[in-house]
Amino acid sequence: MRQCGAVMNKDTEIGIKTLPGGATTPEGFVASGVVCGVRNSSGRRDLGLLFSDRGCTSAAVFTRNVVKGAPLLVTQEAVEAGGVRAVVANSGYANAATGRKGLEDAREMQALAAEALAVEAGEVAVASTGVIGEHLPMRRISAGIEDAAAGLSRDGAGFAEAILTTDTRIKEAADRVEVGGELVTVGGTAKGSGMIHPNMGTMLAFMTTDAAVEKGCLQEILGAATERTFNRVTVDGDSSPSDMAVLLANGAADNDPITASSPDYPAFAVAVEDVARRLAKEIARDGEGATRLVEVVVEGAGDEASASALAKAVVGSSLVKAAAFGEDANWGRVLTAMGYSGVRFDADTVELWFGPVKVFENGEPVAHEETEANAALSSGEVRITARLNEGDASAAAWGCDLTYEYVRINGSYRT
Amino acid sequence: MRQCGAVMNKDTEIGIKTLPGGATTPEGFVASGVVCGVRNSSGRRDLGLLFSDRGCTSAAVFTRNVVKGAPLLVTQEAVEAGGVRAVVANSGYANAATGRKGLEDAREMQALAAEALAVEAGEVAVASTGVIGEHLPMRRISAGIEDAAAGLSRDGAGFAEAILTTDTRIKEAADRVEVGGELVTVGGTAKGSGMIHPNMGTMLAFMTTDAAVEKGCLQEILGAATERTFNRVTVDGDSSPSDMAVLLANGAADNDPITASSPDYPAFAVAVEDVARRLAKEIARDGEGATRLVEVVVEGAGDEASASALAKAVVGSSLVKAAAFGEDANWGRVLTAMGYSGVRFDADTVELWFGPVKVFENGEPVAHEETEANAALSSGEVRITARLNEGDASAAAWGCDLTYEYVRINGSYRT
Repeated sequence: MRQCGAVMNKDTEIGIKTLPGGATTPEGFVASGVVCGVRNSSGRRDLGLLFSDRGCTSAAVFTRNVVKGAPLLVTQEAVEAGGVRAVVANSGYANAATGRKGLEDAREMQALAAEALAVEAGEVAVASTGVIGEHLPMRRISAGIEDAAAGLSRDGAGFAEAILTTDTRIKEAADRVEVGGELVTVGGTAKGSGMIHPNMGTMLAFMTTDAAVEKGCLQEILGAATERTFNRVTVDGDSSPSDMAVLLANGAADNDPITASSPDYPAFAVAVEDVARRLAKEIARDGEGATRLVEVVVEGAGDEASASALAKAVVGSSLVKAAAFGEDANWGRVLTAMGYSGVRFDADTVELWFGPVKVFENGEPVAHEETEANAALSSGEVRITARLNEGDASAAAWGCDLTYEYVRINGSYRT
Repeated sequence: MRQCGAVMNKDTEIGIKTLPGGATTPEGFVASGVVCGVRNSSGRRDLGLLFSDRGCTSAAVFTRNVVKGAPLLVTQEAVEAGGVRAVVANSGYANAATGRKGLEDAREMQALAAEALAVEAGEVAVASTGVIGEHLPMRRISAGIEDAAAGLSRDGAGFAEAILTTDTRIKEAADRVEVGGELVTVGGTAKGSGMIHPNMGTMLAFMTTDAAVEKGCLQEILGAATERTFNRVTVDGDSSPSDMAVLLANGAADNDPITASSPDYPAFAVAVEDVARRLAKEIARDGEGATRLVEVVVEGAGDEASASALAKAVVGSSLVKAAAFGEDANWGRVLTAMGYSGVRFDADTVELWFGPVKVFENGEPVAHEETEANAALSSGEVRITARLNEGDASAAAWGCDLTYEYVRINGSYRT
């Protein structure tokens, strides 16, 4: 029997079809987003509902921050107790560091959504994102939940907007894959922008599927996918009290439930990881103030954990990020970041590339046209590659450049 | 017998007198700094010599980055082999990631300085700071060493300037303390600015004393002081391949050599730590683009290591740094950074202050005038205090705000 959690590489022969849409692309899911005036007076949607027309198995992963927002406690309880089939989420306030009243507010949000959707409170996940340490305006939240329930639709695009904070655009992805002779769909929407770092920094991701999946496997698949996707994104090194990724599986595709021993387990897991990766990259690309996506790939490492730690150190370096903004192929900063990643390696056998331009090998610089290396940094997607000569493991991590705009946004976020 | 390394707290009765000056304030030290054209064509001093007129015991600590510049290897060899009594240092090029030729260049710098000073090569420490991955212009270095040797003086102020990179001012400190009936002096100069982080991020510190100190004790005293001072500074989270702190003790004060059992061991250790702390704070205050020094103090922790980890996480948070720039008393970001520090604590028993204004306790916000809390961020020195209720340990860490100017400097450093 195959071990549950053995996610295969995408290079293997699994036919995944990319679809338009997001969290409501799988069968049986509806969503909505409304303006309830929590976020500010901008008229942007700030409260959303996501709902499955039938019961679900559900899985979730949460921030590792010691400080956890009240909604996470409520959602964790619900996911552990049984099957979550709905999500209520608001932007504007994170409802974190809000004491006992914050917890009461999160439970009330859950109860209000359950009532509006005619389901049990324990079937509703709650998520909040925004300013820390202020209480939710519950009258507005309550009115918003009623409006959102009335506006649920298969299109549901407003939901993706309602969860945004300083994000500049919605983030959605969907894939279709064959499982046990049935076509199943995986979809999702996410928000990111600031306070983004491995281990779920102010990131919300709501993923859905119409596949039927056994609960334990669903959790393993989400955990493994998160490790390789959302936890490989960094915007500014800060991880937040509010981060979570939720995956709801409603079985509308009528497949035999996927278990650890299903032949199609890998295909489904790869589809989930692919959707998560596309959302993760969109989060990195839309980091606060970002002008470009930076992808760091480490190849030839002895193991994936080392490759991942190296890639994350490079993509998280303020100096590498500022160099990416300045279109300066400053490979010394890349090597330096690898050096403090905590991973032991031999700098004399490392090779470094900016885009297609090799800039370092055998412990010293490779003669190259600096203009070509700088040009590799001038597009909307930058790739920095480090090749060790230790083994076959590789990992990618994603981030963005550090810009004046990041400083402006975060120097005046609350005012 | 007292354990070597048991540095007493400054609150104990040790009379330290602050002196003007720096690395040449202790008896018997001379220094110089010259323009040799390594750094750029700005006409700023870029090569310096520091020299004791008699033999020294010596100690050094180095970056923990896996990638180490060639000068560190040469200096480490010299310090381990015996007594270093001279330092040759340049700015402009770090001589790191420069392969075999880089190591040859560092050894040649050492030999040239030894010849100019008429000492053994093994008595000379070598330090380089600046761009990574380019070879030193050895003809200029050689001419500069000759000029610097000819210009050595007791004043020696040019040395402090010669080691600067993007620093905006020199950093010096000196203290006098009584040891065994003799007055001994400790002095030092340092450079910092970018790529500064705990574990010696692009930081050079050259400290001196006219005390006689047994070599093993000198190393312990420097190591302990570094842990509490230089390693508590962060500018941008990047630690560099080139960092080192060196401490030379020449015995010109004629005291009985300080050993682990000397009654005055603590007084001397406190003086070294005090000089190191003042240099460390100047490094933080002069961080790239900084407009203010941020001091984070964690009190009431169970142990000093936890207090230190919490303080360093807060002072290193990009979001806290940007909030300091924006004069926004965003305590949620402080609590969040503590939450991802890796230290377990109970958020419900934490108290937070911005300057004198308490903003958080009992797990939720304390009503306060936001203008007062913001005002605590508007001066040149900002203090953020977190009090746990777990024990008596405390620690401070120092950093600076994150500004547009940081992005400008690091987006165009090499061009």
